[in-house]
Amino acid sequence: MADGLASWNDTPARAAILDFVARVTTDGSPDFVPPAERIAVFDNDGTLWCEKPMPIELVFILLRLAEMAEKDPELREQQPWKAAHEKDYAWLGEVMTKHYHGDDADLKVLLGGVLHAYGGWPVERYITAADAFLRAGHHPTLGRLFRDCGYQPMVELLRVLTDHGFTNYIASGGDRDFMRAITHDIYDIPPERVIGSSNGLRFEEEDGSLVYLSEPDVFDDGPAKPVRIWSRIGRRPILAAGNSNGDAQMLQFAGGEGRPALRLLVLHDDAEREFDYTSGAEALLETARAEGWTVASMRDDWSTVFAEVPAG
Amino acid sequence: MADGLASWNDTPARAAILDFVARVTTDGSPDFVPPAERIAVFDNDGTLWCEKPMPIELVFILLRLAEMAEKDPELREQQPWKAAHEKDYAWLGEVMTKHYHGDDADLKVLLGGVLHAYGGWPVERYITAADAFLRAGHHPTLGRLFRDCGYQPMVELLRVLTDHGFTNYIASGGDRDFMRAITHDIYDIPPERVIGSSNGLRFEEEDGSLVYLSEPDVFDDGPAKPVRIWSRIGRRPILAAGNSNGDAQMLQFAGGEGRPALRLLVLHDDAEREFDYTSGAEALLETARAEGWTVASMRDDWSTVFAEVPAG
Repeated sequence: MADGLASWNDTPARAAILDFVARVTTDGSPDFVPPAERIAVFDNDGTLWCEKPMPIELVFILLRLAEMAEKDPELREQQPWKAAHEKDYAWLGEVMTKHYHGDDADLKVLLGGVLHAYGGWPVERYITAADAFLRAGHHPTLGRLFRDCGYQPMVELLRVLTDHGFTNYIASGGDRDFMRAITHDIYDIPPERVIGSSNGLRFEEEDGSLVYLSEPDVFDDGPAKPVRIWSRIGRRPILAAGNSNGDAQMLQFAGGEGRPALRLLVLHDDAEREFDYTSGAEALLETARAEGWTVASMRDDWSTVFAEVPAG
Repeated sequence: MADGLASWNDTPARAAILDFVARVTTDGSPDFVPPAERIAVFDNDGTLWCEKPMPIELVFILLRLAEMAEKDPELREQQPWKAAHEKDYAWLGEVMTKHYHGDDADLKVLLGGVLHAYGGWPVERYITAADAFLRAGHHPTLGRLFRDCGYQPMVELLRVLTDHGFTNYIASGGDRDFMRAITHDIYDIPPERVIGSSNGLRFEEEDGSLVYLSEPDVFDDGPAKPVRIWSRIGRRPILAAGNSNGDAQMLQFAGGEGRPALRLLVLHDDAEREFDYTSGAEALLETARAEGWTVASMRDDWSTVFAEVPAG
């Protein structure tokens, strides 16, 4: 099984994973879990692929806002269309800085624009656009396609789990239908196993289409994650992996009375190969240390971060 | 394939099913659909099992309300606990009669009680109770266990679809977690493929449990069905089956631009072997006739309604 985790160093994090998978899959082991109950849930942004300097989904939305501003001069005068149109990354960067200092005024302005970006679009049109963006777009600093931004050690972990009878799900704060465009190719996770946030949808009886509303439906973060995992799966996961405070409840939910659980946290401490930050993950890191959850340090536990991609 | 539908008579309804499955699964057919996209969705009450004289779930809830009234004399003085405690089926029957005549006052009283029946219960406790009820309880008039109330022709259809690479889901107005207790055994449909209504849930950070709130979350009926199907699966079904007005939009949603679809309606016209009613299905029947959707008459198209059960 260790061969399947070739991008992991031989450290306690890898040992904890190998030990857990062996315990729950070995017939006769006191921790044996039948295959149907081997549910694993993974956050996406920052856990399976990178989320810096900004979430990949935000790049997609900003392109759409710029496109809207291009067609409508009035939009160019108001945020967030103005910043998207002028590629004003300073304003966008300030949004998150202010947020971390407790000022959410600009964040609300940004989210207001995000809600309107795809209002009235049928779901099929949105998925086609997300798919095209994800296949062709390049990460702004890593010099690789977005679709090659998945963490190789996590892709290996997903594969080892599948090979051992687990069923993997994504449970992320990211947009559900955006992720669905690419999760099968990168993670071998089909659309029906992607749980995420979404705007509302309306069924149009005139033509049988399903279109996005410009209003939120669910924000899949924090305590909403266990609720949504149960709603979708009807089982409690035995493995949960995340990287930020919004994943704490999902990790806590794993296991349950008398059942084993592996709770895995990806720590971004590798400025050289990826990014180095704990902002937004402070509380989760504290809980992980207090509870003895497994922390995977990108710098120390991963020999490879990204798969080598053929030049082309 | 016809052998798999042994409880269906050799009529146009069966022919329509056989023709559709052949068209979408035959390589080179212009209507060929790849296995991953062969999604079939089924309503439950009245489509896969019987819903008369009252939905099976309502029997379960009334037992719980009676149990609550047993412990609390004050509840015995108010509806719907009073009717549940006194087994006052006349009051309960009047609720639906009044509803069909446009008077929902008592229905709101009943639903108010339903919302409180499991408030504060952890999901695992609820599923255990539903499971015990469904395994041991008897249908009030059909002389069989609830778990033997599935329609044999529909169980056969589910199996034929599975054998031909389809993935079957339930998309029902019934309570999601109630259905989950039994759908695997009756229909070979696991909990993650059950879409239904639900009360709200709250994650308790003290002990990591997930408990029901006494408030509704989603009511999975009418235009909500296509929305919820997309949210859960991320694909448009190519086969949809239902039996009441609340299934119309789900049937309309099946297929989509340039893709084949089978829309199947179960018609309850067999007072002898099951029940004879169209109340609540009038609009759907009209649409089915206008659009040429497939109608399965219980009386004419099904040679067997329920599987024979070993005496015991």
